[in-house]
Amino acid sequence: QCNLAGSWKNDLGSKMYVSKVDDKGNFSGEYHTAVSSAQKPIEPSPLVGSQHLDEDGQCTFGFTVNWKFSDSTAVFVGQCFAEKGEEILQTSWLLREKVDSQSSNWKATR
Amino acid sequence: QCNLAGSWKNDLGSKMYVSKVDDKGNFSGEYHTAVSSAQKPIEPSPLVGSQHLDEDGQCTFGFTVNWKFSDSTAVFVGQCFAEKGEEILQTSWLLREKVDSQSSNWKATR
Amino acid sequence: QCNLAGSWKNDLGSKMYVSKVDDKGNFSGEYHTAVSSAQKPIEPSPLVGSQHLDEDGQCTFGFTVNWKFSDSTAVFVGQCFAEKGEEILQTSWLLREKVDSQSSNWKATR
Amino acid sequence: QCNLAGSWKNDLGSKMYVSKVDDKGNFSGEYHTAVSSAQKPIEPSPLVGSQHLDEDGQCTFGFTVNWKFSDSTAVFVGQCFAEKGEEILQTSWLLREKVDSQSSNWKATR
Repeated sequence: QCNLAGSWKNDLGSKMYVSKVDDKGNFSGEYHTAVSSAQKPIEPSPLVGSQHLDEDGQCTFGFTVNWKFSDSTAVFVGQCFAEKGEEILQTSWLLREKVDSQSSNWKATR
Repeated sequence: QCNLAGSWKNDLGSKMYVSKVDDKGNFSGEYHTAVSSAQKPIEPSPLVGSQHLDEDGQCTFGFTVNWKFSDSTAVFVGQCFAEKGEEILQTSWLLREKVDSQSSNWKATR
Repeated sequence: QCNLAGSWKNDLGSKMYVSKVDDKGNFSGEYHTAVSSAQKPIEPSPLVGSQHLDEDGQCTFGFTVNWKFSDSTAVFVGQCFAEKGEEILQTSWLLREKVDSQSSNWKATR
Repeated sequence: QCNLAGSWKNDLGSKMYVSKVDDKGNFSGEYHTAVSSAQKPIEPSPLVGSQHLDEDGQCTFGFTVNWKFSDSTAVFVGQCFAEKGEEILQTSWLLREKVDSQSSNWKATR
């Protein structure tokens, strides 16, 4: 069965740790990003999210990272794949940077 | 101060209810979408997320919606604006649909 | 029938002018953006693109803007709608900023 | 110097051919996608686009693909990198599918 609990590493070298997934699929954890566009030094940051609990081990999931070293927030959404005896997470993300006013909203998300 | 707790409605007619935000910025709630690409009827679905707790009332935030009527997951990321005495949330989203294998990953997210 | 030729204005105040659309659906024109994240002053910039030539007037289309005042490139993709006697273009866009190396690729697109 | 003219292949097996780039950076060509969500069989489809002509060989570019086998349009935006004697294109894309009315606009782009 699909379960996100544990440690994961992506292609950029960022790491995340997901603690126990509860019976509704909710989880929390910590994200150590390897890349940043912020001024301050990178710090591990808390994440909260939710996953489906499908029997087939190919669940979709999402989580939010509340960056400790910037006013930004990131969200990730993806799916777990178990192919060739290996678990792989395929994800997409959006990073929202804080902007001064709604007139700058167009450039706030990458 | 910025606080997401309460009821919100977007341009498409979707509604969300965010319950109490804790002292770390974590929150949970429920999302009633007005639009869907799924086969089954729409049902209210749980959300979990996190917001910054900035003094200026213009915090960024993110949350995950675990759809009850499909195998999909959505994430939203945005920022709160308080302009002209009204609170407005500007958000972007990604919707991950479950696909059979990694070879279909390219089309899984919209 | 759907035809992009003419002048268009978006919600942010950006304007574009599309010259004649040829019999393959190709077109060129000029884009005057109202918003910018570049250092230099905004200048009108050339665009090239392509549209479907559907009879129903609801064609999809796309175009590329080659910014004259920065090293960036933008692409827009959308669809024309003729509702209530008015022609409306619904578009999404991506803005690619030039980065120094592939290790910065993750943040280059918004 | 950066020049997109020639043949390119991506990780999914899609191929594109870019003919001569003119002195303004405009180009045309053909895209053979390896993946599709359309009903009809895949056919090679024409592309038009534009690139910057930077001396450093790391230009940004964009192009539009007008699919011959569907009513959809795709746009790609990216940057050329010349690292370790190899030219690599890093791109992002949006695919616009034709929808019936503006009320379906929210799901038209992936």
